[in-house]
Amino acid sequence: MLYDLIIIGGGPAGITAGIYAARKKLNTLLIAKDFFGQTAKTGEIDNWPGSPKISGGALMQNFEKHLKNFALGIKENQTVISVKQEAVQEGASLLPAGRSEAPSSASFVVRIESGESFEAKALVVCSGASPKRLGVPGEDKFTGKGVSFCSLCDAPFFQGKNVAVAGGGNSALEAALDLAKYADKIYLLEAGDFLQGDPLLQDSLKQTGKVEIRLNQEIKEIQGKTMVEGAMVFDRSSQKTEIIAVAGVFVEIGWTAQSDFLGDLLSKNERGEIIADPETGQTSLEGVWAAGDCVNAKYKQILLASASGARAALSAYEYLNKLKVKNDENNFNKISGNFNF
Amino acid sequence: MLYDLIIIGGGPAGITAGIYAARKKLNTLLIAKDFFGQTAKTGEIDNWPGSPKISGGALMQNFEKHLKNFALGIKENQTVISVKQEAVQEGASLLPAGRSEAPSSASFVVRIESGESFEAKALVVCSGASPKRLGVPGEDKFTGKGVSFCSLCDAPFFQGKNVAVAGGGNSALEAALDLAKYADKIYLLEAGDFLQGDPLLQDSLKQTGKVEIRLNQEIKEIQGKTMVEGAMVFDRSSQKTEIIAVAGVFVEIGWTAQSDFLGDLLSKNERGEIIADPETGQTSLEGVWAAGDCVNAKYKQILLASASGARAALSAYEYLNKLKVKNDENNFNKISGNFNF
Repeated sequence: MLYDLIIIGGGPAGITAGIYAARKKLNTLLIAKDFFGQTAKTGEIDNWPGSPKISGGALMQNFEKHLKNFALGIKENQTVISVKQEAVQEGASLLPAGRSEAPSSASFVVRIESGESFEAKALVVCSGASPKRLGVPGEDKFTGKGVSFCSLCDAPFFQGKNVAVAGGGNSALEAALDLAKYADKIYLLEAGDFLQGDPLLQDSLKQTGKVEIRLNQEIKEIQGKTMVEGAMVFDRSSQKTEIIAVAGVFVEIGWTAQSDFLGDLLSKNERGEIIADPETGQTSLEGVWAAGDCVNAKYKQILLASASGARAALSAYEYLNKLKVKNDENNFNKISGNFNF
Repeated sequence: MLYDLIIIGGGPAGITAGIYAARKKLNTLLIAKDFFGQTAKTGEIDNWPGSPKISGGALMQNFEKHLKNFALGIKENQTVISVKQEAVQEGASLLPAGRSEAPSSASFVVRIESGESFEAKALVVCSGASPKRLGVPGEDKFTGKGVSFCSLCDAPFFQGKNVAVAGGGNSALEAALDLAKYADKIYLLEAGDFLQGDPLLQDSLKQTGKVEIRLNQEIKEIQGKTMVEGAMVFDRSSQKTEIIAVAGVFVEIGWTAQSDFLGDLLSKNERGEIIADPETGQTSLEGVWAAGDCVNAKYKQILLASASGARAALSAYEYLNKLKVKNDENNFNKISGNFNF
């Protein structure tokens, strides 16, 4: 089957693109590893309008349930391995057999983990981002043994212990807040000279009475025997190195776009983010849109990711209508003459 | 008092800007005629992710309630009359008395219906849009006497009657759906040669069995004695004029940005929409952002309006931080040295 649209990703952007595409009655397939996104890893969200203080998990459940009310194909628990553009050539050998409909211009073949391939006239890529790593000795070795990239998942393991959080943005502040429920003391280690995170979150941290903020602190190594026992920290101001005794290091220093599976298909920036028009999500390649955290957008927010998914689907819908016009010399939605429903 | 930020508008964009600004602890005043926006006039909304089939009124209530959880000033039931930029001049006579803090660059004075004025370092304009009018004889005369711009408000008055809806976009289709619950027959009169509205909505209309779609139909006059009795309609295909007997005409042909109160302060397009950067909402004037339906955005959607309000607030926050740095030669958020919370 040749789909109108394949959406890659099951976070807020992908789900919203799915809702919008289904409302436009596009023949859509959504491929998702899961319906969590990074959102479900956030403890409490208070900036999704209309849903005060909702947990990330509950919000994503609402999204998933909403999506599944609509008629579209869903392929879950599958990672996309590659995306290739197929030129339009009659009888081209690379095209899957049994295709019932010729693409009007190029089409896209999406290959997933299971070995299956799916083909569509248009793509919306919402593959998200994954946490950036410190890149220091001990980080890989102790991942899951004290080094964590998900405070919501792992905070309860640190009851009564001392932990460090690397970072100073909202994610780091939220991680410290999650940890404050369990840990005795939290070191917030920010490499720069100020905290970027919301002042309101900074206030909440203050109220816990458990957090020591240290600026200009660079983690150089994570140490331990079988589990994390300490972090070697370099103070950029004093130029001194110190070992802080902690049982855990939570790394919250930002995100890397998940776009490797695209190879060179689309233009990306130096952070691997897909370059997309902020008004439509259009990428460098005709027929392909991108939305959410995998895109070079200035602000990363659940709400903005969701909105960009909607825009991408609306823009893809317009494109597919135009393709159809080209093919049929007739408007997709055109109803000729008057008629009664 | 000199506010950091004044937000004009209480629709999805304004409310979201308010939530984001309050989370950034900006000293914010939100001025709103009401907290409905155009959203509350929509019967059922099914594309606000996570809230399937919610009424526009309920969604706006959720938004308003969420906003009011935060610490910010709110001035309700007030229309903005004018916005003026004040140059920075010590002792300038136009500045309100009792100002406790000098603006760092220009500031903005917002005057409201009551005669009161408020001043801020930055503005986010989310003044929305109002329904476009047909501009034909009888439209003004019969407004409220059969001519309506709000199907949700007025549909119940047309129990057992025949009505016309002018338009073919989603708003028109939704109006026809609202009316189908009451009216006997609905003429959907679209001036163009196809319906722009969502195919899914078109299907729902079909299921009512009450709607006659007529394309290429231009309403030339609305007729009646004291109440609407008919619409004179010109068929662009057949070039014939006909009078359709209807007790109501619902006008759903699009929107006009509500931006007159701004005078020439900001650049606008020919539709009166404020020209704003899609990535940040920045307008042509430093210190002023715009978001939602008053902006020249390609797509108008509740979700996109809300997201643009968030972006505008985030961008205004960055601007205010920079102003502060300029003034204080110190970063707004800067915490010097290490310290314990």
